[in-house]
Amino acid sequence: MAVYTPVSDAELRDWLRRYSVGALVGFEPVATGIENSNYFVVTTQGRYFLTLFERLPAEELPFYLELMAHLARHGIPCPAPIADLSDHYLQALNGKPAVLVTRLPGRSLEAPAAEHCTELGALLGRMHLAARSFPAYLENPRGPKWWRFAAQQVTSFLDASRQELLQDELAFQAGHRFPDLPRGPVHADLFRDNALFEEGRISGVIDFYFAGIDCLLYDLAVCANDWCLGPRRSLDAARTGALLCAYQAVRPVTPLEREAWPVMLRAAALRFWLSRLYDYHLPRPGMLVHAHDPEHFREILELRRRHPALWAP
Amino acid sequence: MAVYTPVSDAELRDWLRRYSVGALVGFEPVATGIENSNYFVVTTQGRYFLTLFERLPAEELPFYLELMAHLARHGIPCPAPIADLSDHYLQALNGKPAVLVTRLPGRSLEAPAAEHCTELGALLGRMHLAARSFPAYLENPRGPKWWRFAAQQVTSFLDASRQELLQDELAFQAGHRFPDLPRGPVHADLFRDNALFEEGRISGVIDFYFAGIDCLLYDLAVCANDWCLGPRRSLDAARTGALLCAYQAVRPVTPLEREAWPVMLRAAALRFWLSRLYDYHLPRPGMLVHAHDPEHFREILELRRRHPALWAP
Repeated sequence: MAVYTPVSDAELRDWLRRYSVGALVGFEPVATGIENSNYFVVTTQGRYFLTLFERLPAEELPFYLELMAHLARHGIPCPAPIADLSDHYLQALNGKPAVLVTRLPGRSLEAPAAEHCTELGALLGRMHLAARSFPAYLENPRGPKWWRFAAQQVTSFLDASRQELLQDELAFQAGHRFPDLPRGPVHADLFRDNALFEEGRISGVIDFYFAGIDCLLYDLAVCANDWCLGPRRSLDAARTGALLCAYQAVRPVTPLEREAWPVMLRAAALRFWLSRLYDYHLPRPGMLVHAHDPEHFREILELRRRHPALWAP
Repeated sequence: MAVYTPVSDAELRDWLRRYSVGALVGFEPVATGIENSNYFVVTTQGRYFLTLFERLPAEELPFYLELMAHLARHGIPCPAPIADLSDHYLQALNGKPAVLVTRLPGRSLEAPAAEHCTELGALLGRMHLAARSFPAYLENPRGPKWWRFAAQQVTSFLDASRQELLQDELAFQAGHRFPDLPRGPVHADLFRDNALFEEGRISGVIDFYFAGIDCLLYDLAVCANDWCLGPRRSLDAARTGALLCAYQAVRPVTPLEREAWPVMLRAAALRFWLSRLYDYHLPRPGMLVHAHDPEHFREILELRRRHPALWAP
C-alpha cells in the first residue's frame, strides 16, 4: 500500500517530544499493511515502529495495545507499546490515532521448514498461556458475525457455484460451533509475514490488529493454512505435525479440540476467503496496492471440505 | 560476592514453568552485587537475569519492580520484569523472593570519556521525565534518616578527625535541605558498573534496588562523583560539563538546583562514605568478598567541602 497519512520530519521530531525515547535520527514509510500507515523510526535511544490508525474503530484500539503490552511483559517477543510522558499508549499524530511500539529484530520467511513451524507452535502455545491472565474482552472482529455481514456484501459478485459454496459453508459452520473449546485472546492473523526469525529462532510476532477473543484452536488453524501448505494447498504432514506437536508440548489440547480441528481449518479458510473477496470487490478509497487473490482461500476451503484433515501431531 | 542461595538445574527448570519464556537452556551465577543472588539465564526464548533477594525488605520490592516496569514501557533501556502466568512480577524461589528480568546487551565502562557522560546525562534526563508519571512512593532508603542511623553505628570505629568530619557534614546537610527542588523517582546508585554501553551508545541502566523518591539532582551528583572523577578525586571539567549539559538539554534545571549543586555533591559523597563504612565495619554474615574502601568517598567529601564545585555545564 501507499502510506495514507504523510508525516514530515518536523512533525515527527516535535511529536517525539511527548515520549522519553530521545531525539529523531531518521524515519521511513513501511510499504506493508492495508489498514494503517506505518513508519520505521530511529531515535538516539533505539528503533521503533510508528502506526497511524486509518480505519480501525477507536474503541477497539485499547484492547490491541493493552494485549501487546501484556504479552510483552510476559516475555512474548511482540511489539511493546511505548507509553508517553502522560503514561498513555495511544497518542494522536496528524489527526489520526497513533502508537509508537518497539521494533523487533529478524525477518519473515517465505518458505518455512518444519523446524520453523516447531518454533511457531511453541511460541503460539506460550502466547496463549501468557494471554490467559489478560482481563479485557473484544470478540474476534472477524468472527462468525462478520462472516455473515461480509457474505451479504460480496455475494452478488460471485458466480452460482461460489455463492453455493459460501452459503453451504456458512450453514455448516453455524451447525458446528464449539462453545466448550478453550477460548482466550488469539492473534487471528499469524501469517508468515507476521512472524520474524533470526538465526532460526522466532524473534517476533507482529501486527495484533485483528486480535480478539476466540477459540485458541482457531489461531493454530490460521497458521496451518498458511505455514504448512503443501502441493495444491494440501497440508504438508511434516510442517503441520511440527506445528501441532510443539504447540501441545506447551499447552496440551483437549479431546474436543482434536475433534474440532477439521472444522476449524475450514472456518479459518472461510474467514480469509471472505475478507479477500471483500477487499477485492469492495476496495476502500486509497487502499490496496496489492489485493490478495481471493481464489487462494476458496481452493483451500474446498480442499479442507473434500479431505478433512485429522489432528496429527 | 558468592551467591548466597544456590539454585539447581532441576529447580530452575521447574520454576521457569511458571512463566511463558520457554524452556531452560543454561544458567550461571553472576559474581557481582552484595545484596542479592544473581544468575544469568538462557531459555529457548531469550536471555534473562534472575535475582533472589537476600536482605531487601519485602515491602520495598514492589516499588523497585513496578518502577523498572514503568520505565521499560516508556522506552528506558532498563531491565523489564517478566510477569509470571498469574501476572505477578514477584515470585519465590528456594524460599527467597525472586524476580526474572530481561537481560540487556552491552558492557559497563571503567574509564568513560566525555561522550559517554553525554549519553548518561541524556538518559538520566529521559529517565527522570518518564518516571514523573510513576505513582508509587518510597522514600530514598539511603537518605538523611539512614545517614543518621549509619553514623551512630559506625562512629565508634572512627578516629577523632573522621568523627568530627562526619558530625560536621551531617550538621551542614541538616542545615541545607532543599524542600523545593524537583523530586521524583531516582536511581540513586548509577555508578559506572550500573550502566551498559554498546557501540558507544548507552544500552542499559541496571540495578534499581537502591531507587527511591528524592531530589532529581541527587542522581546527577551520584553520577558526577563516580563518572567524572579527575586527578585526586577532583571533577574533570570536560566530563562533568558533558553530563550536566546533556541532562539539561532534556530536563532544564531550575536556578535553585544550580545553587544546590555543591551541597548535593557533598550529600552524595557522604551517603557512600557512610555505606562503605557500614559495610566495612559491620559486615553481614556471608557478604562481601570485596569491601569497597571507605576512604575513597571520605576524600571526595573533603575535596567537595574544600573546593565547592559550581554548576558548569
